[in-house]
Amino acid sequence: MKIEVLGVGTTKFGELWEVSPRTLVKEAVSEALSDANLKLANIEALYVGNMLSGILGGQENLGALFAEELGLFVPAFKIEGACASGGLAVHNAINSILAGVYKTVLVVGVEKMTDYNPGEVVSALMGAGHDEERLAGMTFPGLYAMLARSYMEKYGTTERDLAVVAVKNHHHATLNSKAQFQFEVSVDQVLKSPLVADPLRLLDCSPISDGASAMILGSERQERSKTRKTVWITASSVATDSLGLVGRKDLTSLASAVEAARKAYKMAGVNPQDIDVAEVHDCFSIAEVIACEDLGFFPKGEAAGAIAKGKTTLGQGRLIINPSGGLKACGHPVGATGVKQIVEITTQLRGEEGLRQVKGAKIGLTHNVGGSGAVAVIHVLKNE
Amino acid sequence: MKIEVLGVGTTKFGELWEVSPRTLVKEAVSEALSDANLKLANIEALYVGNMLSGILGGQENLGALFAEELGLFVPAFKIEGACASGGLAVHNAINSILAGVYKTVLVVGVEKMTDYNPGEVVSALMGAGHDEERLAGMTFPGLYAMLARSYMEKYGTTERDLAVVAVKNHHHATLNSKAQFQFEVSVDQVLKSPLVADPLRLLDCSPISDGASAMILGSERQERSKTRKTVWITASSVATDSLGLVGRKDLTSLASAVEAARKAYKMAGVNPQDIDVAEVHDCFSIAEVIACEDLGFFPKGEAAGAIAKGKTTLGQGRLIINPSGGLKACGHPVGATGVKQIVEITTQLRGEEGLRQVKGAKIGLTHNVGGSGAVAVIHVLKNE
Repeated sequence: MKIEVLGVGTTKFGELWEVSPRTLVKEAVSEALSDANLKLANIEALYVGNMLSGILGGQENLGALFAEELGLFVPAFKIEGACASGGLAVHNAINSILAGVYKTVLVVGVEKMTDYNPGEVVSALMGAGHDEERLAGMTFPGLYAMLARSYMEKYGTTERDLAVVAVKNHHHATLNSKAQFQFEVSVDQVLKSPLVADPLRLLDCSPISDGASAMILGSERQERSKTRKTVWITASSVATDSLGLVGRKDLTSLASAVEAARKAYKMAGVNPQDIDVAEVHDCFSIAEVIACEDLGFFPKGEAAGAIAKGKTTLGQGRLIINPSGGLKACGHPVGATGVKQIVEITTQLRGEEGLRQVKGAKIGLTHNVGGSGAVAVIHVLKNE
Repeated sequence: MKIEVLGVGTTKFGELWEVSPRTLVKEAVSEALSDANLKLANIEALYVGNMLSGILGGQENLGALFAEELGLFVPAFKIEGACASGGLAVHNAINSILAGVYKTVLVVGVEKMTDYNPGEVVSALMGAGHDEERLAGMTFPGLYAMLARSYMEKYGTTERDLAVVAVKNHHHATLNSKAQFQFEVSVDQVLKSPLVADPLRLLDCSPISDGASAMILGSERQERSKTRKTVWITASSVATDSLGLVGRKDLTSLASAVEAARKAYKMAGVNPQDIDVAEVHDCFSIAEVIACEDLGFFPKGEAAGAIAKGKTTLGQGRLIINPSGGLKACGHPVGATGVKQIVEITTQLRGEEGLRQVKGAKIGLTHNVGGSGAVAVIHVLKNE
């Protein structure tokens, strides 16, 4: 499989009260078109990743809505799979290109979450979970707190060990002008922040965010850029698991991510050791620890220790995780996240990231999760 | 393009208060698997078409939800495009097969609408429309009433002319044990039914419905059935138009349907005159009249007259429209509709429909519309 990433763009993530989803999408798409040196007329289909527009805003039919807004009257689709909506949109866009049905496809991930009461948003996000969990009043911090407790019990990991994830990702975000939180936090700050769902504290949790990210994908291009490296997607894989935690045998790993990773490595012909840079779904600090192990980057029980030693930190480690700041510090507009991850890896593999550039990065990976691991999407990218 | 329809199934459509969406999906899938003589283990991916689960029920992530419910832990996706969600799910499932990514794919369309206050449902359905129309208090009967007024003014069509669509589709539904309304209505009954949005009356409108439909698609099969005809999808096309009516030059045609039809005929290598049977998106009587013209079945302004003469009625005409009873009388669980249309055409092309069989049908078409024409999906099928 070889799909070219022709262009990428992203808005700033954050509390963007002054703009609408339409404006966010136009900004991200405009940047992606300009980056690809393409015009709207070159685009043959539009894939939109979004989760909450229906529940929070009563607005569906986002494929047609953004097609109209962009003045791009091509086949348009909304793909939804909770916080993995963006990654799943990319997967389906890729399939349509591999099918030979569309040649050049625009993918947009977008979410507008901060216009609503936070309680409403937390409740809406439970639309990603099992109805029994949802109707019982469970929240996503609560679900991931159970993963954290289970993990801590099994591996002796402490709250302090988990806090290093937030510290690293906040550090990376200080180098990202598009990030929601461009400031450092210390382990002590994380440990002193309010408890949200024991053992997870405020600074263990990704924020509620607005933002849009876009990319243009193609099977081949007549004229290759001579001024920058070409980036290819060499694997796109999806796997599912039980919707709720009650269906799981093990709460210290996400089986969907393990399975999607296995397929992706096989498809791309690479091993975990070949990955230079990854954007993983750190919706909570525990999620990044588990992700690093599910992806085969570290043995079970050892990821938190490796992160603490700087093995995934810019300028220190060999395999850099979440150089953008991740969901934790770059922000997590849920439908946009899976797209933004690929935008970040693309610019990393082109060597365009300046201060937060992972030096010599050749192979990158994205890991996007929906719900508490009900669905996972993995993409592998490489430059040439 | 040649995608085999390996198996199909559908629940009864109607007010199904005693069952959940999960039960509906299981029933439709079980029927499709049995019809295909396949097991769950043969299925490599799941595509779900649904519009309202988020807005009405707060439940998203339906790909993973139904994967879990079926015990089918394969890649799973929800595709949404308002009332075209089912057709768009089929389109993306087909692309994934053409891409060689998945070999045997299950598509499910489902909607559960009658558990809610009808006012809530009418309001939720406006999630398919332009936000300005929605926030102004417009409803879908109101939008289609504007199409009807514009059409009547241009072609001199009367309310009586439109009523024949409902009369025909109710007649067809008397022959369909899965239909929501298995009773005849007369032109006078339509004309005496309460006015919903002038000139559209209650019996011009499709109902609020529950239901699920499923199909299994594949690229090729080792063993072909010797006891029944094989049905192939030979075209799958999508087009978009402005989300709201304010963006349209002409309210007597849906440009998205015209464009999708043009592409579908080209892809399948057929003409409108080759179609023996079609399921079209008759959400309102005027919609079927416009659909028949957009699809090239009759010249502009002549469809209502042709329908009145029985040219599309079972046992009378040569090109039978909506033998299932259509959205009007078979019912319109919105996410299921685009899938059900293909289920109906498949069994028609196999010659399995008994009393409502279109004799000698060889080529069929489905026409599925989202919003007031913002998106249209056309599939062409043939037997062999």
